[in-house]
Amino acid sequence: MGRWFAKFFQDAGFPVLISDMQTELRPEDLARQCQVIMLSLPMEVFPKVVAKLGPVIPENSFLTDICSLKQSQVACMLECARCEIAGTHPLFGPVETSMEGRRVALCKGRGKRWFTWWEGLLRKHGAVTSVVSPEEHDRTMAWTQALNHFILLCLGKAIDDHGIDPRQIMALATPSFEQQMEILARLYHQDPELYATIQMSNPYTDGVLETFSQHGANLRKIVKEHDRTAFIELFEEVQDLGHTVLLSKKFM
Amino acid sequence: MGRWFAKFFQDAGFPVLISDMQTELRPEDLARQCQVIMLSLPMEVFPKVVAKLGPVIPENSFLTDICSLKQSQVACMLECARCEIAGTHPLFGPVETSMEGRRVALCKGRGKRWFTWWEGLLRKHGAVTSVVSPEEHDRTMAWTQALNHFILLCLGKAIDDHGIDPRQIMALATPSFEQQMEILARLYHQDPELYATIQMSNPYTDGVLETFSQHGANLRKIVKEHDRTAFIELFEEVQDLGHTVLLSKKFM
Repeated sequence: MGRWFAKFFQDAGFPVLISDMQTELRPEDLARQCQVIMLSLPMEVFPKVVAKLGPVIPENSFLTDICSLKQSQVACMLECARCEIAGTHPLFGPVETSMEGRRVALCKGRGKRWFTWWEGLLRKHGAVTSVVSPEEHDRTMAWTQALNHFILLCLGKAIDDHGIDPRQIMALATPSFEQQMEILARLYHQDPELYATIQMSNPYTDGVLETFSQHGANLRKIVKEHDRTAFIELFEEVQDLGHTVLLSKKFM
Repeated sequence: MGRWFAKFFQDAGFPVLISDMQTELRPEDLARQCQVIMLSLPMEVFPKVVAKLGPVIPENSFLTDICSLKQSQVACMLECARCEIAGTHPLFGPVETSMEGRRVALCKGRGKRWFTWWEGLLRKHGAVTSVVSPEEHDRTMAWTQALNHFILLCLGKAIDDHGIDPRQIMALATPSFEQQMEILARLYHQDPELYATIQMSNPYTDGVLETFSQHGANLRKIVKEHDRTAFIELFEEVQDLGHTVLLSKKFM
């Protein structure tokens, strides 16, 4: 995603410097030369790099990151640097060719001037931005990322272990299941290390997985006991949620 | 779906008679007059209707059904009627405007002549047919329908009970989660009674739900213990499955 944003800034007309493990340019030198610094780092090394880099960033510069989690990351940037700060989470992957219609979560850190510029730039290029607190961001990601990935991994592992031929499954797929397998297939292009971190480093994940598992146990009981009344009540509750989702999409 | 197929046959140029609870025409009279009889019934009343109807169907007629399950349904038709028989499961809902590209599962029951005609007619109208044994059909449906619905219901119920605003979730949705919620929203148009039967009447459902739950418990353990090696191994296994799915789609 770092490379994706380098291209994004270049295409938007900004000169871009890149520092990584393969470049001669060191992060500290880059930090002194650039007004806007975007960190694209594995979350495991993030605190260490920010601790080293933060102190050399001039106060009137802007620091942002593109980590998939925001609570400890924004706190870390605020602690280590005195410049303006915002957390950015592009809610899409590097396969997207443009920002048009893509969602970006933004967390305010410190300062208004750069934040306004940054949100404006993203919107100008078609992004749908949402400003949330880092806590609210991570809480929501436990649902939209951690639980979603969890479900896909359990489904995929169950199919794989069972030995049922995926081609047979696809030949008899309903449109709904076909879409489910398409989502699963997206994982093929993803980085396992990032997904491990998303699953393991979000403090809200465990609670969400626990809730999901409890509802699973409850629904299995309903199915086993052939309790049609309870099933239909639950089904209609989920239909109401589906309706809200359909309505929310209309206004997005 | 009965109404959908009535229109399908009419559009294909066949005269169609309909018998249901609101018509004067009784099923037995219809059975004597039509060469092709398609049963569109709630699975709960299926055996009773077939027992009554079967004996009056002439031997050279064709009987088929469109139930979502096939094992006991095809057996029931074979037992009660002496005519040619096939099981049909259209793997799509009544929202589809045509059969083009839609999948239909077919189970051979008795006789070749009508089966060949029926499969040919479906294919002529763009359906992708798969011939499977009733057992193989129900086994596969435990994955593609029962487990898929189970996952969507647990996810929806968990979101609803947690009280998190679905609009907030959608505002921060990744493309993958957005698609997941789109699948969930499809349930809004479905019949809870049919979904209860799909969940409760398939003898293979319980085993599949058990497998899924076990994999859930296992993955939760991996996440809780921060076992990155086990997580990445599992992730890569699912990626391989995703790759197979992508390849299978290319040849469909």
